[in-house]
Amino acid sequence: MSLTIGIDPGSRITGYGLVERRGSEIVYIGSGIIRGGSTGPIERRLLMIKRELNGVIERYRPEALAVEEIFMAKNPKSILTLGEARGVVLLAAAEADIPVFEYTPREVKSSVTGAGAAHKSQVAAMVGRLMRLDHEPETEDETDALAVAFCHAVRAALFRGRLT
Amino acid sequence: MSLTIGIDPGSRITGYGLVERRGSEIVYIGSGIIRGGSTGPIERRLLMIKRELNGVIERYRPEALAVEEIFMAKNPKSILTLGEARGVVLLAAAEADIPVFEYTPREVKSSVTGAGAAHKSQVAAMVGRLMRLDHEPETEDETDALAVAFCHAVRAALFRGRLT
Repeated sequence: MSLTIGIDPGSRITGYGLVERRGSEIVYIGSGIIRGGSTGPIERRLLMIKRELNGVIERYRPEALAVEEIFMAKNPKSILTLGEARGVVLLAAAEADIPVFEYTPREVKSSVTGAGAAHKSQVAAMVGRLMRLDHEPETEDETDALAVAFCHAVRAALFRGRLT
Repeated sequence: MSLTIGIDPGSRITGYGLVERRGSEIVYIGSGIIRGGSTGPIERRLLMIKRELNGVIERYRPEALAVEEIFMAKNPKSILTLGEARGVVLLAAAEADIPVFEYTPREVKSSVTGAGAAHKSQVAAMVGRLMRLDHEPETEDETDALAVAFCHAVRAALFRGRLT
């Protein structure tokens, strides 16, 4: 058993997705979003993210946490806000002693769709298919979290020579 | 009694400074730095910052936490790293139920030196004098933390009509 949690951090919405590697298969375990809210002081929103994420981690006890590297072309204010949410996510991993793995958007897209320049809609469709979901995840945040979890699970398996 | 902690977050070094308003005076209580280290995974460094900061908060029980707004002209990678450390600091405040106050670099400099465009060396010298320190703080991070704490203490006092 090898359980990975993928996270798409954000101060308003943080997506999470859990996948498990079973032999040569990557199986969907669960996913959801944590709403930090769009109003109220940032520190309250970070606290909400941290508490809910702690709950998810306690419930599933993942062995690895995967996040996407942040795309640097965004505006500085968004990078700061993303950084704040990301810091709290990384802290949650360290507190639970879960190793963190980072992947570029290109690596994630490529592992899910086979193409590093795939469109968001293609990623969402492939995540739905690969995980055999009966519906696509409701939000992009959840899709992105599942995609990065999938990316890690495939790469970790390749690394150990388990998947072909 | 009104105790303010000022923080200058950073993934390598986080400075903190505590000041207390006593009537019309702002009194130095303590200051220091937390070393996240310059090597090792970022999540471990964030964990170190969080744990030490929790210790400082428990020891002094400040009633307000003051931070500087992040200067957006830095490069995106630095903003991200700062954001991560800052997220952890804000989380620590929220967990301890301490309200957070933000000031621009200009507001901080102006409250300490009387000039919004003061040089770093002037700020450091004035912090030393205002706090009646027998020496200037050893690192810039500690100075900056004391300066933002001072800024909040003065403004909070003005707001309440206590200082002239």
